This record gives sequence, C-alpha cells and structure tokens, in this order.
Amino acid sequence: MSERRLSIQRLTQQGFACFGDVIETDGRSHYSINAGTAERYDDLARVDVSAASGRPVLSICRAAPNAPPVRLRLMERHPLSSQAFIPLSSVPFLVVAAPAGDKLELEKISVFRSNGRQGINYRRGTWHHPLLALERVCDFLIVDRGGQGENCEEVSIADQNFLVVEP
Amino acid sequence: MSERRLSIQRLTQQGFACFGDVIETDGRSHYSINAGTAERYDDLARVDVSAASGRPVLSICRAAPNAPPVRLRLMERHPLSSQAFIPLSSVPFLVVAAPAGDKLELEKISVFRSNGRQGINYRRGTWHHPLLALERVCDFLIVDRGGQGENCEEVSIADQNFLVVEP
Repeated sequence: MSERRLSIQRLTQQGFACFGDVIETDGRSHYSINAGTAERYDDLARVDVSAASGRPVLSICRAAPNAPPVRLRLMERHPLSSQAFIPLSSVPFLVVAAPAGDKLELEKISVFRSNGRQGINYRRGTWHHPLLALERVCDFLIVDRGGQGENCEEVSIADQNFLVVEP
Repeated sequence: MSERRLSIQRLTQQGFACFGDVIETDGRSHYSINAGTAERYDDLARVDVSAASGRPVLSICRAAPNAPPVRLRLMERHPLSSQAFIPLSSVPFLVVAAPAGDKLELEKISVFRSNGRQGINYRRGTWHHPLLALERVCDFLIVDRGGQGENCEEVSIADQNFLVVEP
C-alpha cells in the first residue's frame, strides 16, 4: 500500500472540539484569586471518569521522542472515560485523533501540533494515537480513570502506512 | 510581635505525608505502555472530590513571583476536597502547609521547597498558604472540585509575622 500522508494542523479549541478540550490559558477567561497574587483559568476540561463507579486518577507519562517523519502505529480509545494529557516539559508534541465510535474511521484521522503549553482532554471514546513526543523525552500529567471494567481498546494501524508530514 | 522564622525543608513524600501526596516520578514505580514507547507512573495522588456530589475540575493557576524573604499572608483549607497543584514551568516554588483540622495550628506550619518538577496534592481539609512562586510568573495545573457547598475557608496570618528563611 502506498503512503497515506497526513498534514499537521495547529491545535486550536475550535479545530479540536469534536475530539475534546484544549487545556490552555490563551483565549480563556480568568479571575483573580489569593488576594490578587494569582489568576485562575477555571474548569478547562470536562473530566468524565465516573462511569461504572470510576474515580479520577493522576499519573505521569514519560514518552520517548519520535524522529520525523512519524509513522502511525496504533489507535486506542477509552470507552468508559475521558483522558487528559498536560505537558510538563513545554516542548511541542503531536496529537492524533479520530471521532468516537465503535469503529475507527481511518479517513477521519487528524493530526495536531501542540505548542508545548497546550494540553488536551480526549472525550470519552475518542480514538487517539499514543502521544507523540518530538524533540526529546517528555513528561505529561495524565488525568484519567481508575476502577473496574475494560477501559482500553487498541487497533493496530501499522499496516496502513500513515505518514505524518509538515503542511 | 517579633518575627517568627520558618526554615524551608526539602519536599519529600515522607516529609509531606501528613499533608498529602507529592506528585513526582522519583522513587516511584512505573510500567511500560504504548508498545514500550512510554512509561506510566500510575496513580500518584488521592483525588478526593466526590463529597456533596462534587466533580473533578482541571484549571490553570498563574501565580506572581515572591521576592525572598517571603512573609506569610493567609492560610486556607478546602473542607470538601483535596486540591492538587502540578507545576507547568519546572521552576522551584514553596509549599506551606499545616495539619487538617477545624482550627489552624500556627505552631505546626511547615514550609517545603519543590524542585520544580514535584507537584503536591493537599489532603482534604489541610491548611495551606497560596502557592508561592519564586523566580518568575509560574503556571500550575490545579485538580480540585466543582459543585455545590462552601469549600474554602481562609484565615489571615499577616499579623503573625511569619518569615520564611533559608535553612
């Protein structure tokens, strides 16, 4: 099969809206707290982890870098919860997502580049590639779900020859 | 009233255990995910936000820096939830805490310095000062609670002359 090239889009709240939330301060309102010494950008993502008696879990993911051009390997989804990744390293990274649904729609895969300050929160059931760090090993805070039930489905797409390219 | 000097301690899981969790990878176990391309340091804090039908909320706090020596101003606690702060700027900051309880015990206030990669999660009801950024404006991810009910009590300690000093 020939290569299927996917262009990288800039990550914006509008462009990512069908997949979930962009967690960032740009373009968001805030209010003053702590006697004016801090600003709070409140409630930036819909954390959806309570299905089947789930609970919120905080973890750190340390991701190895990917040398461009990146080939996509697998997509996964979490049918019982949202999943947020917030970068702790301030380094740009790639976000690969496809619409929620029982079946992954290969022709609807999109690729976004975070500016390194933007985190994302995949809506429950949204298909996504494992995060793609770029320049170096990067840490991310994960906010997802703990509890009973099978909450991860994976589909290999290594044989589909998706290649991520600059626009 | 004369100055009451508080020395800064190094932030460690053991030293902070009576106030909550230290969110960090050092000294924590992990497992491999995503076909070996990432490591997950799982479940690093006890998120306790469900009281009174509460829900987890993700926000970003942008904190102004404090020039040393820092004078303490106020302590607060959240009777209905834990509250986590994870640094997004990799810059050291100060954490000031006192044991949970209806009454703030002034003589039990402790001051810790995060190395800039360590986040913290205050256990429900733990008294704490607003985070003290040091060198420059710093962003923190907050994980706390949304929902009904009064979840913040504040006590001014500006008149107590607490001064934070190097050890």
